[in-house]
Amino acid sequence: MDYQERSRAYTLTDGKSGFSIAFAGMKFTAADLAALQSRAARALEGIAAIESGAIKNPDEQRQVTHFTDRIAYPESAEFAAVEAFADKIRTEGKFDAVVVNGIGGSALGPQLMQFAVNGPYWNELPREKRRNNLKIYFLDNTDSAGFDDLLAVMEPEKTLHLVISKSGGTQETKNNMIAMEQYYASCGLDFGKCAVAVTMKESLLYRHAVENNWLAVFEMAESIGGRTSETAIVGHLPAALTGVDFKSFLAGACDMDVWTRGKDFAGNPALMLAAMWYLAGNGKGDRNMVIVPYSDRLVLLSRYLQQLVMESLGKELDLDGKVVHQGLNVFGNKGGTDAHAFIQQLNDGRDDFFATFIEVLHDARKLEIADGVTMGDYLHGFFEGLSAALRGKGRQVITVRIPELSVYALGQIIALYERTVAIYAEFININAFHQPGVQAYKLAAKDVLALREKLFTALAGKEITGTAGVIAGFAGVPEREVEVGALLDKAALNDGGVSRKFNGTAWEYTVK
Amino acid sequence: MDYQERSRAYTLTDGKSGFSIAFAGMKFTAADLAALQSRAARALEGIAAIESGAIKNPDEQRQVTHFTDRIAYPESAEFAAVEAFADKIRTEGKFDAVVVNGIGGSALGPQLMQFAVNGPYWNELPREKRRNNLKIYFLDNTDSAGFDDLLAVMEPEKTLHLVISKSGGTQETKNNMIAMEQYYASCGLDFGKCAVAVTMKESLLYRHAVENNWLAVFEMAESIGGRTSETAIVGHLPAALTGVDFKSFLAGACDMDVWTRGKDFAGNPALMLAAMWYLAGNGKGDRNMVIVPYSDRLVLLSRYLQQLVMESLGKELDLDGKVVHQGLNVFGNKGGTDAHAFIQQLNDGRDDFFATFIEVLHDARKLEIADGVTMGDYLHGFFEGLSAALRGKGRQVITVRIPELSVYALGQIIALYERTVAIYAEFININAFHQPGVQAYKLAAKDVLALREKLFTALAGKEITGTAGVIAGFAGVPEREVEVGALLDKAALNDGGVSRKFNGTAWEYTVK
Repeated sequence: MDYQERSRAYTLTDGKSGFSIAFAGMKFTAADLAALQSRAARALEGIAAIESGAIKNPDEQRQVTHFTDRIAYPESAEFAAVEAFADKIRTEGKFDAVVVNGIGGSALGPQLMQFAVNGPYWNELPREKRRNNLKIYFLDNTDSAGFDDLLAVMEPEKTLHLVISKSGGTQETKNNMIAMEQYYASCGLDFGKCAVAVTMKESLLYRHAVENNWLAVFEMAESIGGRTSETAIVGHLPAALTGVDFKSFLAGACDMDVWTRGKDFAGNPALMLAAMWYLAGNGKGDRNMVIVPYSDRLVLLSRYLQQLVMESLGKELDLDGKVVHQGLNVFGNKGGTDAHAFIQQLNDGRDDFFATFIEVLHDARKLEIADGVTMGDYLHGFFEGLSAALRGKGRQVITVRIPELSVYALGQIIALYERTVAIYAEFININAFHQPGVQAYKLAAKDVLALREKLFTALAGKEITGTAGVIAGFAGVPEREVEVGALLDKAALNDGGVSRKFNGTAWEYTVK
Repeated sequence: MDYQERSRAYTLTDGKSGFSIAFAGMKFTAADLAALQSRAARALEGIAAIESGAIKNPDEQRQVTHFTDRIAYPESAEFAAVEAFADKIRTEGKFDAVVVNGIGGSALGPQLMQFAVNGPYWNELPREKRRNNLKIYFLDNTDSAGFDDLLAVMEPEKTLHLVISKSGGTQETKNNMIAMEQYYASCGLDFGKCAVAVTMKESLLYRHAVENNWLAVFEMAESIGGRTSETAIVGHLPAALTGVDFKSFLAGACDMDVWTRGKDFAGNPALMLAAMWYLAGNGKGDRNMVIVPYSDRLVLLSRYLQQLVMESLGKELDLDGKVVHQGLNVFGNKGGTDAHAFIQQLNDGRDDFFATFIEVLHDARKLEIADGVTMGDYLHGFFEGLSAALRGKGRQVITVRIPELSVYALGQIIALYERTVAIYAEFININAFHQPGVQAYKLAAKDVLALREKLFTALAGKEITGTAGVIAGFAGVPEREVEVGALLDKAALNDGGVSRKFNGTAWEYTVK
């Protein structure tokens, strides 16, 4: 088949919504797909099991319900409660901004949604242009600089706080909550009157919110993981408060779910997309996935997919306990901009990637640049040109097209990638719904904090000068010299009772 | 050597500034470095040649002067002119915002600088908190939606426009300029009174600005490429208009330049860093570079480095004309946030990367979370914990530490990576200062626009219904069916005299 024939054969289109995805730019043959047939059939069985409530996250012994819960959600009492809460906030007019305090799956979806639907300058729009909806800020780390930056623009009495943590114990989120409670107390204000919790029933955060008479508590389902929670309450509440039509978003996701339940490659874009990932990366992620939406407002999509894909697929063991070290790298920003950044390498350098381009057909504004050629025509030309150039160099390209950047289309995109991740996980026989590797660093972080306490307890009231090695020895932890040095550096720069001087070879610390 | 000994041996520290970079977490031996010795010596000769004015970009027959021009720049008449211009803008008070219209190297540096120095909410601060400096916006694409979003918050009479293009012919930048000129004309305003050009002497843009009596024109040196232009006028003008101490930035860069002229691994962090890239990736970029600054304000660093590294190193041919397909992938966002995103994969999944962590020692705000443990202590703990966890899994880590996120430290970081890229390019014998792969897509884009014109000329005044194949045939370009379909899709969604209907298999277009 030539490229035109391949395009006809391997472009999947939903005529109703206008969503299409084209695979002709990938290197595969009909025989490659045929060889994947039995694997695909098993994968579809696996997904059917997920959707019928099987325990598909064996480590955590839980169901996986993000594909199915969203079917009934729009008509549920919970949905109505969220919308009613947002209406009340808009109507009462007390609040003008909302701070989303959450990390990972509790922030990336809402950030993507806000940027895509409300645009980059939402917070700079006057209230009437926001139709009484709230400005939105994110505390998505545990960085005092990020906290400090927020305080410079935050009006405490007019700011609503969403504290989002499924387990209720996420340390970064807890830190921001505690710091914010202290800040409100220092202003003589009751934080609870501005605070809303989103968490599992009876979690620590849940009880904390109830005990402190927070404005509201919304429950998260145990069976929906953070990185697939954008179509549930985690996505809904920030969306509702900023005027996003969440029902339309869910419709997009659910319609894509219907399509991606298709039984064969030709009738299921997620099955096809998973096959491309598999073939391009030899079933091991040997090629990076480069995401290039030709849309300024979709610049955060790659970051969202980075979590969805890498946290789901980056696993040491397969479901049989065999060491596999799987994964699939994701990066990208936006086209045409990236053509002036890293595309030089994609075109000329390592053949270690496949690109996924996303085109938004409708132009937000008609800007005629020359002789009936609009800015949108140029962007289209750059997109098609780059795609042709890459294919001409033997590089691989997938193209997604949406008629416009609607919240419905965003729902389609997210649901497509959620489903593809689940199918690809079945292909490679891994659990896509846990994150065991995150434990290691949490434990190691606790260990560093314990070392810190041990060190400064040992140093309390002492006066001593020496290198990190000397002081580690003095504190009885000579084997932790490197970490002790780092703790002393940190203390030296933060009035921690330590000063430091470079002796030409190493830092010498003085503790007083 | 154990890890402690390696840390002592392979941590390079500048005692004066407090900048340090630690390599102990990388997998290499003293023998590996010894084996690189002659390559390193040759590389340093190559860099010395650059600094003494040799033609080090043979394709473009030009010198490479970004390392050396910045030495004299702070005392130059050009520097004074930029500062005087910014002072005048501040004093006169006519303008309250500046739009930077530029793409790639004309935007990524200023974006990084703004976010790092002025923070994420600079535009939301009242003018007095900005010390009379301007709000800043970027048009860094040719997306009508991005343009439209800007117009929603832009006050034309109070907005200054910097149009930045070295060649003066960058199409994306030109498009935004033309659209903005039209917008100003539609408001009855003279764009020239608000416009400043930054470009090479006598470029198209230069002449356009002079002819239209723009407010000012600043010249760019031919010998400084876009991706290394942040320490020159491209970085300076936006910085000066937003109150950034550019002299301090240059001091950081120049001090790092002095350090990175060191003659051996122990005395030159860039030489050492280039060796790590080389060893980790087998001289072919076999490992991705993951950039994780533990700092919200440095979230754009990875994107900046993505261009600097990938556009410089992603090359098809080496300097001898041999096909090498070199490159080095860069991605990342910020820690600790990324620990809740893709770090699962780094920890458990593919061993196909090395991480570069950047720690800012000084906490912007002291937020005590519990018992003398601050938010900064937690961030430090997460950083050290993740580093330990990754190393425990045999993964590789480099650690950069800066005392605080000053504009001086930012200058050090940028200069370190610029020098490392240049040295690594010498290691692998490529030209780091051209971007031949960008031409291919520009030509292909022109071809698409030419096809568009041919198509709609052929269709003008005709009525026809059919698939893309039918219409391509009708227009005399049957071999371009795929591109024709895409052009018709674009027209159908933008009132282009085309409608489309899905027939169950393919789109049918009606032209009228």
